[in-house]
Amino acid sequence: MQTDHTHDASRRSWLADANVAGTDFPIQNLPFGVIRRAGSDETFRGAVAIGDHAVDMARLAQASCFDEEVALAIRACAQPRLNEFMGLGPAVWKALRHALFDALSEGASGECVESVRDALLQLNELEHALPTAIGDYTDFYTSLNHARNVGNLIRPENPVSPNFHWLPIAYHGRVSSIGLSGQPVRRPHGQILSESRQEPEYAPCAMLDYELELGVFVGQATRRGERIPLDDAERHIFGVCLLNDWSARDIQWWEMSPLGPFLSKNFATTISPWIITLDALTPYRTRWDRAEDHPKPLAYLESGANRAHGAFDVLLQVALHSAEQRNAGEPPAILSETSFRHQYWSIAQMLTHHASGGCPLNVGDLLGSGTVSGPLPREAGALVELSRGGREPLDLGNGEKRSFISDQDIVILRGWCERDGFARIGFGDCHAQVTPALDD
Amino acid sequence: MQTDHTHDASRRSWLADANVAGTDFPIQNLPFGVIRRAGSDETFRGAVAIGDHAVDMARLAQASCFDEEVALAIRACAQPRLNEFMGLGPAVWKALRHALFDALSEGASGECVESVRDALLQLNELEHALPTAIGDYTDFYTSLNHARNVGNLIRPENPVSPNFHWLPIAYHGRVSSIGLSGQPVRRPHGQILSESRQEPEYAPCAMLDYELELGVFVGQATRRGERIPLDDAERHIFGVCLLNDWSARDIQWWEMSPLGPFLSKNFATTISPWIITLDALTPYRTRWDRAEDHPKPLAYLESGANRAHGAFDVLLQVALHSAEQRNAGEPPAILSETSFRHQYWSIAQMLTHHASGGCPLNVGDLLGSGTVSGPLPREAGALVELSRGGREPLDLGNGEKRSFISDQDIVILRGWCERDGFARIGFGDCHAQVTPALDD
Repeated sequence: MQTDHTHDASRRSWLADANVAGTDFPIQNLPFGVIRRAGSDETFRGAVAIGDHAVDMARLAQASCFDEEVALAIRACAQPRLNEFMGLGPAVWKALRHALFDALSEGASGECVESVRDALLQLNELEHALPTAIGDYTDFYTSLNHARNVGNLIRPENPVSPNFHWLPIAYHGRVSSIGLSGQPVRRPHGQILSESRQEPEYAPCAMLDYELELGVFVGQATRRGERIPLDDAERHIFGVCLLNDWSARDIQWWEMSPLGPFLSKNFATTISPWIITLDALTPYRTRWDRAEDHPKPLAYLESGANRAHGAFDVLLQVALHSAEQRNAGEPPAILSETSFRHQYWSIAQMLTHHASGGCPLNVGDLLGSGTVSGPLPREAGALVELSRGGREPLDLGNGEKRSFISDQDIVILRGWCERDGFARIGFGDCHAQVTPALDD
Repeated sequence: MQTDHTHDASRRSWLADANVAGTDFPIQNLPFGVIRRAGSDETFRGAVAIGDHAVDMARLAQASCFDEEVALAIRACAQPRLNEFMGLGPAVWKALRHALFDALSEGASGECVESVRDALLQLNELEHALPTAIGDYTDFYTSLNHARNVGNLIRPENPVSPNFHWLPIAYHGRVSSIGLSGQPVRRPHGQILSESRQEPEYAPCAMLDYELELGVFVGQATRRGERIPLDDAERHIFGVCLLNDWSARDIQWWEMSPLGPFLSKNFATTISPWIITLDALTPYRTRWDRAEDHPKPLAYLESGANRAHGAFDVLLQVALHSAEQRNAGEPPAILSETSFRHQYWSIAQMLTHHASGGCPLNVGDLLGSGTVSGPLPREAGALVELSRGGREPLDLGNGEKRSFISDQDIVILRGWCERDGFARIGFGDCHAQVTPALDD
């Protein structure tokens, strides 16, 4: 997993805003999404973010300077969804990222540079669609800290299921309610059994929560019955985004036995619009490891390469911006910070396990990593953990407290990578405001 | 829920094979599917089954005799999937079924009759595709007998979860592995914790099972946040088919805590190719009821109309045809027989509950009813129930025994409706042969 010149921190772009310290989208990132002018009825098309701009692939498809492989990639990327582009495979993904890197580099010149310049649109004038047609969405459960924190609340006698240490637990989620950053999330109704009652009632959720996750886009399909050796798994992964697996805890506790969460999760899932490629994440890989006292994975989930660089040090943060804070001009409160490197299972292990029974994966499918909770209490990726089931409300720093999410709260997920000698790259925007439940 | 002339048992077709006693597809049925000539590379298109034939909607779309609403329905139905047709709504579904009934009726004459005759293809010369583009697949768990039977095997101290009596339990399933009757099903590998071992192993499933279910196709969408009053729920249902929710029990017992079944279910789901419309099922409706000692449903799941005719008396049968039986020219063994009328929750209640938290439903979505197990032991809809977890193997009648499904076994689901004074209508073919696991 070698880095190359596209990861070189000293490289800059002729586009000034791509070189500003703290930008999520320096030239070393180049994430993929789907855009059109905000409020227009234009057809959506693929794009790549750079600084405060996006390279519009539909415009770039008119350029004649690129070699055949890259030109094919650009044309596929100009479609309303990225599925066709992803279907071209990892070598083509990399070829396009490298061609854009070269054309955007300081000092570059020639026809391609002019074509890229002509294809630039201002990010703040754009709106997004889901980057792929998602055939299936699977949500994993791969943080041991999260499993312990939540397990202690609801199954203290047996907080972590014995299978957790042996397989990346997962369940199927709902595609139809996946939405993009910025779309409001309505507080759901559902069946709730309160502690004070003998019988459940149908009422608005009173324990609304978020879950901090990464979303993982499948970029290469598997056939029915096809198994994926662990060391081939990442060839099937296009990239990652931020994902908020909104959760109605009171509905969840009542409904989830014995077949798992359903309505408590399927009212909304929020993702960030830009997909950070595995190629861009190369410098931030790290050792996947686990303590000696944990069982060694079964052979199909074990490899030297996965041990050596299967984990990703993606730094993650959750912030909450209340209506009161916004009205007072105060910044959001930071609720927690952690890293994705703490997950008990790697992305490659998730994919290999998913295919291990023969279930076909399709291009554009989405996997959720499961809540990312680090080892320390303040690193927990859900409010139910931070507030210990609501018993210890969190102080937002302005006098407000939260056991769970209140109406009008904006929940913000942030993600970025940084490492000595390499650039900082960011994940962009992932926020959503909670709107009140409908009337009964 | 009045019957009309399309349910009149005395009506016959000019197509002789539609009048043969025991046909699944008499003129009173007219189910919808998607067809092309077997082995061809023709485009798939919608069709309606009648006797041993199918009315090819792409051919019928060239007729000019139908009124505008019906002509629009035929054109939509001529597409490769039925989503566009379903999107037109219940009045249009009914108009097309009635127009075809009239044109196929004995004694009918005129241009439409000739057009329908010209559009007839022989069923045994056709192949099918999935009838809709399925956006999401949800599997319910709505038979109290099944919950009791399975619960007694794996959670004898608490066989039926308390929420069962209050809500139609469900979980999200996998769209990518839904296949059609006739497609083989490969025995999956997976993680299994055997009783004799301390640690799990990755091995072929040794407890392969089927589940007898109905599949329910959503024909009208709901918007995000939209709730559906119980008495409007059936307007969103196009019709039903047979569904085999293949289950790897050993994989399931190990993986399913705490988030539900995953790889144990997502390797294969088999459905029958023809969708029986709710319109055709009208005569076989029956009272939805439950014993006095069960809790009264919450208000959103309760209505007089649902009580009066919310259940469907669909008779169901599971048969197993072993390689040995086939080689000896013997018929399949009947494993169980029951009726869908015993389900604890109605189809309308499933849909209303599904939408009750605001989760959007899309045209073409598929719901599984959950295993249909009747009140008597021999009415159980899964082998794990019939063989009591494998401890009491079933005798196939030819000396063979089954605790679970063996390689090469063909599992056959059958469904039909019959009622005094009305025609017998059938569900057609739903079978699949199990092929051996891949080598390790």
